[in-house]
Amino acid sequence: MKVTVCRKEHFNAAHRLYNQEWNDERNDEVFGKCNLPNYHGHNYDLIVKVTGEIDPRTGFVMDTKVLKDIIREHIIEKFDHHNLNLDVEEFRTLNPTAENIAVISWDILRKKIPVSLELKVVLFETERNFVEYTGE
Amino acid sequence: MKVTVCRKEHFNAAHRLYNQEWNDERNDEVFGKCNLPNYHGHNYDLIVKVTGEIDPRTGFVMDTKVLKDIIREHIIEKFDHHNLNLDVEEFRTLNPTAENIAVISWDILRKKIPVSLELKVVLFETERNFVEYTGE
Amino acid sequence: MKVTVCRKEHFNAAHRLYNQEWNDERNDEVFGKCNLPNYHGHNYDLIVKVTGEIDPRTGFVMDTKVLKDIIREHIIEKFDHHNLNLDVEEFRTLNPTAENIAVISWDILRKKIPVSLELKVVLFETERNFVEYTGE
Amino acid sequence: MKVTVCRKEHFNAAHRLYNQEWNDERNDEVFGKCNLPNYHGHNYDLIVKVTGEIDPRTGFVMDTKVLKDIIREHIIEKFDHHNLNLDVEEFRTLNPTAENIAVISWDILRKKIPVSLELKVVLFETERNFVEYTGE
Amino acid sequence: MKVTVCRKEHFNAAHRLYNQEWNDERNDEVFGKCNLPNYHGHNYDLIVKVTGEIDPRTGFVMDTKVLKDIIREHIIEKFDHHNLNLDVEEFRTLNPTAENIAVISWDILRKKIPVSLELKVVLFETERNFVEYTGE
Amino acid sequence: MKVTVCRKEHFNAAHRLYNQEWNDERNDEVFGKCNLPNYHGHNYDLIVKVTGEIDPRTGFVMDTKVLKDIIREHIIEKFDHHNLNLDVEEFRTLNPTAENIAVISWDILRKKIPVSLELKVVLFETERNFVEYTGE
Repeated sequence: MKVTVCRKEHFNAAHRLYNQEWNDERNDEVFGKCNLPNYHGHNYDLIVKVTGEIDPRTGFVMDTKVLKDIIREHIIEKFDHHNLNLDVEEFRTLNPTAENIAVISWDILRKKIPVSLELKVVLFETERNFVEYTGE
Repeated sequence: MKVTVCRKEHFNAAHRLYNQEWNDERNDEVFGKCNLPNYHGHNYDLIVKVTGEIDPRTGFVMDTKVLKDIIREHIIEKFDHHNLNLDVEEFRTLNPTAENIAVISWDILRKKIPVSLELKVVLFETERNFVEYTGE
Repeated sequence: MKVTVCRKEHFNAAHRLYNQEWNDERNDEVFGKCNLPNYHGHNYDLIVKVTGEIDPRTGFVMDTKVLKDIIREHIIEKFDHHNLNLDVEEFRTLNPTAENIAVISWDILRKKIPVSLELKVVLFETERNFVEYTGE
Repeated sequence: MKVTVCRKEHFNAAHRLYNQEWNDERNDEVFGKCNLPNYHGHNYDLIVKVTGEIDPRTGFVMDTKVLKDIIREHIIEKFDHHNLNLDVEEFRTLNPTAENIAVISWDILRKKIPVSLELKVVLFETERNFVEYTGE
Repeated sequence: MKVTVCRKEHFNAAHRLYNQEWNDERNDEVFGKCNLPNYHGHNYDLIVKVTGEIDPRTGFVMDTKVLKDIIREHIIEKFDHHNLNLDVEEFRTLNPTAENIAVISWDILRKKIPVSLELKVVLFETERNFVEYTGE
Repeated sequence: MKVTVCRKEHFNAAHRLYNQEWNDERNDEVFGKCNLPNYHGHNYDLIVKVTGEIDPRTGFVMDTKVLKDIIREHIIEKFDHHNLNLDVEEFRTLNPTAENIAVISWDILRKKIPVSLELKVVLFETERNFVEYTGE
């Protein structure tokens, strides 16, 4: 009897999309206004989903307060009010697209969430653009 | 050609989280302010998802009006404007966490939805805390 | 040049609507299922709006972090995860309708917000039922 | 390492539900007010989800601008501000239920999205009624 | 001590925008795709706001259940699942723009809401296009 | 008979809050993490409200397509995917708080919206922080 518990957190960050190995023309062609040099930003929403058995003593798969604290300590502290390209080590050489932010977030959380629980993340860059990642 | 049809309903209920076999200190430690003795409450949103073949005569997998009526008769009537701990038989001895409310809702609906249809529920306790259950 | 700054906070609480001077029959007639004796609850959203001149040194009418802290200390701490009828002194004899919760919230905040700023509150009991109060 | 990229678009359309082979009485019985002869309408939201490997040069599974353009050219242009029953060839003989609109949308998009990417659609007819289709 | 009580209801309707005294060319020029002859439609949200004194016996300005019933009987029954141009008498000769739907709704409700209460309506045609009307 | 027509548009931008005349310590004290040197960002939503008489020929106070085009040309083009501090002339010396972005937006739009129409703007920096400005 497996239930998935989901927690939504958010962070506000600046970023810019470009490939450091390409020239400006090619970056403009591929990334358009997302490549503008002085950065733009988003209100990101991150939904973290963990799946496992209900503990019969608590009725919880995982206490959402504990899940919230893990997300805030390891993801929100790292990304919130920062420039993803300049301030976050993982994005020094990795393009901070929604896809890559989701993968990096999953990788960080996977080490902090008990291994008995499956992990999935959903990252909203805007209300209309979002990505899902399950680690597979 | 299987399609999933989803219907969202809502109910407003009071609850309190605690384990009857634990003392107050342990309940406070685990459940924090969710364990306060006079109850608190939520606007719950329940999404019910049924998956099956489209009936070529109607274009429906299941008429959402029928699905709505089933949810309202068997779940909303039972939970809405009630105290889950005191008024709902299933939670007399079962802690009314989001996980357990989802499982109980699924169990009730499973008996009312045609067996040819797969069933999944999503229960929002708040906009930021929600759970998913597929009966597996 | 007056600007209105708005901050949304939320709390989860239980309540029950009834007039202590009426008998059960009359309370049922007027309040229906909102009068059920074991309480129900809501995810309340409170929007606090303050109107005033922009401080040219900061660009703020009022720092939303300061406004957030005032709301959390004086309203959320008092109402969140509580039973409004039993736990909140103001509602011992006052029916905790959305209207009255808004008025009490405004009265509390009015003493904490600088008098140079106009104050308005909007209280959502559900997505479909909400009230507005300006102190007039 | 597969990531799912999602894009939400919307269209406003009129429709009416009925089975051309049934008489009025039977159509009323099955479709109720959705069968009213002069049509009604909806603000439809369509979420298109594509799953595949991240291109290491761009950090994209698929550029959401490209995905947006495909949806707008092949779905939105066809459905938006139209009467689904009268103006859209696919629904001349097929009942434009949410289920069938999702299947038709998937079929159209499947031909326009690279075959290396899995495709799923979610169609909201209202905030409370929506369907999901994966082509299986 | 005046409080404003707000209730949100919704209806799904078809409509088409055009001026019967203009030729097709002029209608196309002014109304664009909103003038397409076979109608399109929307999920309309109507927020009705009534302002008045709190009744000290109930804590209500107006019972939202009563307000809901008035809106459903006089507005939703009339507009929901209908074609505004063809089925609603008021729009036989009046263009069913969001502005005019708001004014007609206000006029209808004004006769049903106690005169001691101020009345305001907000009508959402889409999430991005909405109008407000206070009768002034 | 005055109606208010509202249109919501959005832009994604980077910004940083600080007073150029203050030292780092004082800026940190007042603006906290909003003052981090490499910028952060938001998905801003801008609601523009215009109030005036309904034109009896069209049923419009103002065509929302025209209003949308004005907002996009004069506000969205200027702010979207830009760094407000570095790329937008008005914020070279003016702190880009929500308050100041609202005032600048209103000033720009006031020159483009017919003088017969009253103008109000609402700017959402996040779902929980927003400001309103009427030019008064």
